[in-house]
Amino acid sequence: MLRHTVKRQFNLFSRAKPVREAFLCAHNGVSAAVRISTMNRSNVLNYSTKIPPRLTAESYPNLQRLSEFKKLSSDDLTFFKSILSDSEILQATADEDLAVFNEDWMRKYKGQSKLVLRPKTVNQISQILKYCNDNRLAVVPQGGNTGLVGGSIPVFDEIVLSLTQLNKIRSFDSVSGILKCDAGVILENADSFLAENGYIFPMDLGAKGSCHVGGIVATNAGGLRLLRYGSLHGTVLGLEVVLPDGKILNSMDALRKDNTGYDLKQLFIGSEGTIGVITGVSILAPPRPKAVNVGFLGVGSYEAVQEVFVQAKQELSEILSAFEFMDLKSQTLAKEHLKGVSHPLEDEYPFYVLIETSGSNKEHDDAKLEAFLEKAMENGSVLDGVVAQDETELRNLWEWRESIPESSQAGGGVYKYDVSLPLKELYSLVDAANERLNEKGLSSTSDPTKPVISAIGYGHVGDGNLHLNVAVRAYSKEVEKVLEPFVYEFVSSKHGSISAEHGLGFQKKNYIGYSKNEQEIAMIKELKNLYDPNAILNPYKYV
Amino acid sequence: MLRHTVKRQFNLFSRAKPVREAFLCAHNGVSAAVRISTMNRSNVLNYSTKIPPRLTAESYPNLQRLSEFKKLSSDDLTFFKSILSDSEILQATADEDLAVFNEDWMRKYKGQSKLVLRPKTVNQISQILKYCNDNRLAVVPQGGNTGLVGGSIPVFDEIVLSLTQLNKIRSFDSVSGILKCDAGVILENADSFLAENGYIFPMDLGAKGSCHVGGIVATNAGGLRLLRYGSLHGTVLGLEVVLPDGKILNSMDALRKDNTGYDLKQLFIGSEGTIGVITGVSILAPPRPKAVNVGFLGVGSYEAVQEVFVQAKQELSEILSAFEFMDLKSQTLAKEHLKGVSHPLEDEYPFYVLIETSGSNKEHDDAKLEAFLEKAMENGSVLDGVVAQDETELRNLWEWRESIPESSQAGGGVYKYDVSLPLKELYSLVDAANERLNEKGLSSTSDPTKPVISAIGYGHVGDGNLHLNVAVRAYSKEVEKVLEPFVYEFVSSKHGSISAEHGLGFQKKNYIGYSKNEQEIAMIKELKNLYDPNAILNPYKYV
Ligand SMILES: Cc1cc2nc3c(=O)[nH]c(=O)nc-3n(C[C@H](O)[C@H](O)[C@H](O)COP(=O)(O)OP(=O)(O)OC[C@H]3O[C@@H](n4cnc5c(N)ncnc54)[C@H](O)[C@@H]3O)c2cc1C
Ligand SMILES: Cc1cc2nc3c(=O)[nH]c(=O)nc-3n(C[C@H](O)[C@H](O)[C@H](O)COP(=O)(O)OP(=O)(O)OC[C@H]3O[C@@H](n4cnc5c(N)ncnc54)[C@H](O)[C@@H]3O)c2cc1C
Repeated sequence: MLRHTVKRQFNLFSRAKPVREAFLCAHNGVSAAVRISTMNRSNVLNYSTKIPPRLTAESYPNLQRLSEFKKLSSDDLTFFKSILSDSEILQATADEDLAVFNEDWMRKYKGQSKLVLRPKTVNQISQILKYCNDNRLAVVPQGGNTGLVGGSIPVFDEIVLSLTQLNKIRSFDSVSGILKCDAGVILENADSFLAENGYIFPMDLGAKGSCHVGGIVATNAGGLRLLRYGSLHGTVLGLEVVLPDGKILNSMDALRKDNTGYDLKQLFIGSEGTIGVITGVSILAPPRPKAVNVGFLGVGSYEAVQEVFVQAKQELSEILSAFEFMDLKSQTLAKEHLKGVSHPLEDEYPFYVLIETSGSNKEHDDAKLEAFLEKAMENGSVLDGVVAQDETELRNLWEWRESIPESSQAGGGVYKYDVSLPLKELYSLVDAANERLNEKGLSSTSDPTKPVISAIGYGHVGDGNLHLNVAVRAYSKEVEKVLEPFVYEFVSSKHGSISAEHGLGFQKKNYIGYSKNEQEIAMIKELKNLYDPNAILNPYKYV
Repeated sequence: MLRHTVKRQFNLFSRAKPVREAFLCAHNGVSAAVRISTMNRSNVLNYSTKIPPRLTAESYPNLQRLSEFKKLSSDDLTFFKSILSDSEILQATADEDLAVFNEDWMRKYKGQSKLVLRPKTVNQISQILKYCNDNRLAVVPQGGNTGLVGGSIPVFDEIVLSLTQLNKIRSFDSVSGILKCDAGVILENADSFLAENGYIFPMDLGAKGSCHVGGIVATNAGGLRLLRYGSLHGTVLGLEVVLPDGKILNSMDALRKDNTGYDLKQLFIGSEGTIGVITGVSILAPPRPKAVNVGFLGVGSYEAVQEVFVQAKQELSEILSAFEFMDLKSQTLAKEHLKGVSHPLEDEYPFYVLIETSGSNKEHDDAKLEAFLEKAMENGSVLDGVVAQDETELRNLWEWRESIPESSQAGGGVYKYDVSLPLKELYSLVDAANERLNEKGLSSTSDPTKPVISAIGYGHVGDGNLHLNVAVRAYSKEVEKVLEPFVYEFVSSKHGSISAEHGLGFQKKNYIGYSKNEQEIAMIKELKNLYDPNAILNPYKYV
């Protein structure tokens, strides 16, 4: 009886349209993702907030500039002018504070660099680094400056080495799918170029309109296509890297298979600009899928979310390209934020799942998705759902997932944690955080005198990646103390990672011990010391 | 008109059966792959040839044992006996020459070790290595001893550290698909275990009945599923490694995503036992495909092979799991070897392609394959073909690919080269080799006085991996000199790799310069020196 009701409620390809239209009108281009991906075209850096940041040096008064680093002198400028043209050197002046290069996207950090170098060739970068290394000038490599842990901007007066002008596609082989490009090519441009050739960049993220191919490699970004195409450790075939002493490590000619010696390039994937400057990337692009489907499902418990995931892997297997889950609270916040737009599902459910398939044959994919959904409804793991009928509906369903970060910030502020946990325990962190905040009497969705609105959870189930967002009415030391190091300790006790995607940067430098053991940390420091003995690259960060 | 004829010749699902039956009778379990994968069950090591090898020290008289290594003493044995039980220590005696551990699978090399240690715990391995490092005793880590470059056996009197008894599955998470196991688990056992749980090991190779999970990681093996599941650099999530000084690097708890620090484990993938002993592997297993199809196609030119590959990627996309090509000469040899068995295709073609799909829905996969083949016939890139109707036929079609190594050895001997080349130029090496052999008057398929029968080519087009086999009537220094360093120089001039899959080991130690540049080699040596300053691990090999 219940099954039957449920089944009737689930109306494949039917309910979506009216919902979508309302949604589209109200939310044209509001999400962070959209803003970011258009911003680059107009060349205006769009921050996450209008409130300008304080100087990092002021926010962290205990942190001192390292005296072993030389201060910039006129001799240094003379040298840089000898190898770079005027348009490749930006200096701070009375009118120009270089804020665009000194502030991060979140506007949490602000450096004080007086010099930005924007070389156009690898050879120039080699000369710059050699000079800086010989003269103990600290350097921050900067890509699209969209990083979320304060890694891409100076802390004090480090020179910014911007890759923005090293931005050519070098070659593409349409038989093998191997793309070779400069590090400064914007991700969206690389993907558009590949689209013209029937291929796809094996990685996508909200910042694609600004972030660089070199930047995503330097941060080992995860993003939306990881479930389908795997990590950059598998898809990057070769790199060109300028080492701190100016030497060039070049494996750009590497083919898909090469078993001669340690795979050096791997060390630079995720090294966040601390041991070398990535100048070129060779990557294997898969064929672009011809059909994409998105479904949005209501689920009764976190256990059921896991069941749906296993079923999806079994039934959709090779075409499953995203499996995102969201809790009810995240959707409640999103509904408040997207006022007036009706939610894809009429009733409320403890959990929601967004499922995406990408394949080469629309008809087959539709059939697979339908069969999977029918089974999942039948056995009760899915309680309700809609499937997008066209590109617009598809993007709209994604909006209910992608607008969560913004929605959780809308009440005043948000503490964000990007962690990995074993799948079974992924959601337990959200429960634990809410419990703790309630115990301390800090949290209420309705009482405006409480600092915390709620802790919400969502993320990439497929990758064991949870985003814990604690939505607050205002930032407060009290709340921060209740959350930290509690969250890191919780993650560490489950052998999770305190940074699944975003990296260490400045923000998490001191917390690596929660994810890595002593032996690992010792070996990481040893490598840093091996490649950058003067520690000129990205100081005050990472380890 | 031509098109029409061609189309009629191509008879989907029809011609295969009679051919297969004949084939099966004649070739029950003859191929190397089959032998290898059954050999483990009976625990008998099956070599590639019956002719026993000469001592490596005799074949390479210029190579000297390094005097810095201590010779085994009774004190050393006393120590090993204090931490290992009797069954964990094998000593050479008058009756027992430890040949199984001293000879490689190809029987090209033979070491003179007098001591084999087969510990059962990681802790024992840590103690062994610390002792050997402190006492300058050289050690060779050994997995299933199926390596093809002489890396797994001693050159002189090095101690063999065999992982065979460290062979437990540690855990499997059926939601995430994460398998954790000891390094000594045999690949086939790991895969069978996963099969029971609906998952598949993301790697397969002919040696699966003997090679270890740790061994394939140590060699970064490629094999048959690479096209579909990518390289081990993407699928391995964590490792447990004992370093030469006995310290244990453990990242077994790592989840799919963790961006905190350099990805240390990557250095050990493909390190061939030179910087640490892998004791545990955590790997992400994909769901087991429910449907597998195999087609065997006739193609008119190497250009057409490339066209078919691009079409297959576009049309079969996510279900394409193998794309193997073979030249006519390879099939001519195979036909001679498999006397009396009729070839899958009636007529001869300059090239053949074996295509495999693996997906979650048989009906969909059949439809995709049929549509692809029809198109490819229509536009003339494929001239003829058959598709297997059942599991038996499927295996038989694979036999025509897998029997090539044996067939090329059957005339007397074979020089084998396992290289990567840019796809466009993959086959040019075979032409160049044949031309050169003909020029020198060394080659003839019919004249028995010529040393060379023919150079043939086949391999994994999907990975840019060519196997060049030079079939000879007898080994001769003259032929070898014509081929080497010619082949390596040719590969190097096209920026290819002289070892796509098999690694460097002993055989290619001196040739790394053909694949890696000076900077890369310098950094590889630097890392070896960092982790193994006394160079006790796998000496005389790799770099
Ligand atoms: C809206 C939005 C959505 C996001 N979504 C995701 C997501 O889904 N998944 C995810 O993983 N991340 C996400 N991120 C964060 C992500 O890390 C960055 O967007 C991106 O990977 C960084 O690229 P970038 O070119 O902007 O690098 P930057 O921010 O400029 O730099 C990041 C770090 O890399 C270093 N670096 C940059 N370029 C180089 C180079 N060429 N050589 C050496 N070092 C270099 C810098 O020194 C710095 O430490 C998101 C960010 C935003 C703003
Ligand atoms: C019939 C046949 C087919 C093959 N097909 C393929 C193929 O398709 N693709 C491919 O890539 N290769 C193939 N190979 C070769 C391949 O490299 C090996 O079969 C396999 O990867 C080695 O595993 P093993 O456990 O036998 O390692 P071994 O042969 O024992 O060792 C190989 C190397 O790894 C080191 N090693 C082994 N275990 C460890 C450990 N636990 N820690 C540290 N170092 C270790 C050894 O010191 C040695 O240097 C094939 C071999 C055969 C005989």
